[in-house]
Amino acid sequence: MKPEFARFSAFLLDCDGVLWRGREPIPGAREAVEALRASGRKVLFFTNNATLSRKGYLEKLRGLGFEAEVGEIYCSAYAAAAWLKGRVKKVYVVGEEGLVEELELAGLEAAGPDEAECIVVGLDRKLTYRKLEEALRCLIRGALFVATNRDPTLPTERGLAPGAGAIVSALEAAAGREADMVIGKPSTYMYELALREHRIEPATALAVGDRLDTDVEGAKRAGLAAALVLTGATGLRELERARVKPDYVLASIRDLFE
Amino acid sequence: MKPEFARFSAFLLDCDGVLWRGREPIPGAREAVEALRASGRKVLFFTNNATLSRKGYLEKLRGLGFEAEVGEIYCSAYAAAAWLKGRVKKVYVVGEEGLVEELELAGLEAAGPDEAECIVVGLDRKLTYRKLEEALRCLIRGALFVATNRDPTLPTERGLAPGAGAIVSALEAAAGREADMVIGKPSTYMYELALREHRIEPATALAVGDRLDTDVEGAKRAGLAAALVLTGATGLRELERARVKPDYVLASIRDLFE
Repeated sequence: MKPEFARFSAFLLDCDGVLWRGREPIPGAREAVEALRASGRKVLFFTNNATLSRKGYLEKLRGLGFEAEVGEIYCSAYAAAAWLKGRVKKVYVVGEEGLVEELELAGLEAAGPDEAECIVVGLDRKLTYRKLEEALRCLIRGALFVATNRDPTLPTERGLAPGAGAIVSALEAAAGREADMVIGKPSTYMYELALREHRIEPATALAVGDRLDTDVEGAKRAGLAAALVLTGATGLRELERARVKPDYVLASIRDLFE
Repeated sequence: MKPEFARFSAFLLDCDGVLWRGREPIPGAREAVEALRASGRKVLFFTNNATLSRKGYLEKLRGLGFEAEVGEIYCSAYAAAAWLKGRVKKVYVVGEEGLVEELELAGLEAAGPDEAECIVVGLDRKLTYRKLEEALRCLIRGALFVATNRDPTLPTERGLAPGAGAIVSALEAAAGREADMVIGKPSTYMYELALREHRIEPATALAVGDRLDTDVEGAKRAGLAAALVLTGATGLRELERARVKPDYVLASIRDLFE
């Protein structure tokens, strides 16, 4: 490991753009994760995407050749469920199976628009007008408004598609109020949840991501060191113009090592 | 007619909240429209709603007992088509039948996401994620972005439902850019189109509406006198706090007369 990274005992890795791009692992990423583990470091996986549960991400990670355990995975579906647990019971979901799965694992209940105390909004590729209408009905009744993330888009094989942030914006515009809580990066909640659950001191952790406005911004706000990799959404030109700078810049995650 | 209104020779009437509420005509509204016509005044009908064509609105007006002609109706579907005519040919539509009907009447063509030069976004109660995805694909390709209106909600029998503005906001968030043109009030375009098509001098026209942020705001921006009626969305309390004040306040449209 390069000497400047030796002081970190926990590595908080964003997935898309750091470990893989679409369905292709990024060269050297598997080896880097293995080398981190071999050197006794804790490795945790982060993603704003709320369409998969932890179990779903575990399968994805393993399918791409990354060894992992459920407890190491911080997806916004899991984190949303963790945040809601104890706060509410009945939730109206605008989102996919993985989100519903995590909510149920946390003891929450997917409910209709006239019973829900809360709406949770994630990416929903089966979104309909009716779902927006029902979610708005909850909001007008005063339901809590939780967004899994504000990602405006997500990459697909056909190009960029609308992200959870687009759906959140539609409901904010209709309801005339902002989401009460955003779970995903750049919100600090997922990082804080992981630090708490794994008893990690912020000073010992390095967040690695490919986006300035989510990964780096969220890590800095949470008091973590941040490394930007150039294998994803951000190039050197964006980096120059960036308001919030990462502590380290790596061509790819394998540059953690010599 | 009350003396203060005698100088107006054209009356530009918003519909919902002025002439009817839901499916119920507002008491005295029919008689007021008839009296305006009987006194030789021009009467034009305005609505931001883009789900119906002019023909559709004509049926609605007549069904509620208001005599009208197609050329007197300014709905945002017609106005969007008028604005686009000559500017583009192929349009990707997020909207309902009435919008498609007006575009076709203007010689425009509803097109798929890979051919469209423009997207037009109105209220679409059959909205799906796929439509948002296709509209975004147009925007990323650089298509013109036209919104029929920014109404955040619309009243229904079940309460407020998301308006065209919610769908516009979703696409603005995803594309990272604002709509290039908004047709409906408070944009001045529908008023200007009507003044031009009917050769009305702005100083001779009175706009009558029930909303400060659309009807009154749009009328003032277009250089028209504006009357607010209290039979719709706005009460005296909102009026007190208003930034833009109407020139006249009427309990209802029948108060144009003694």
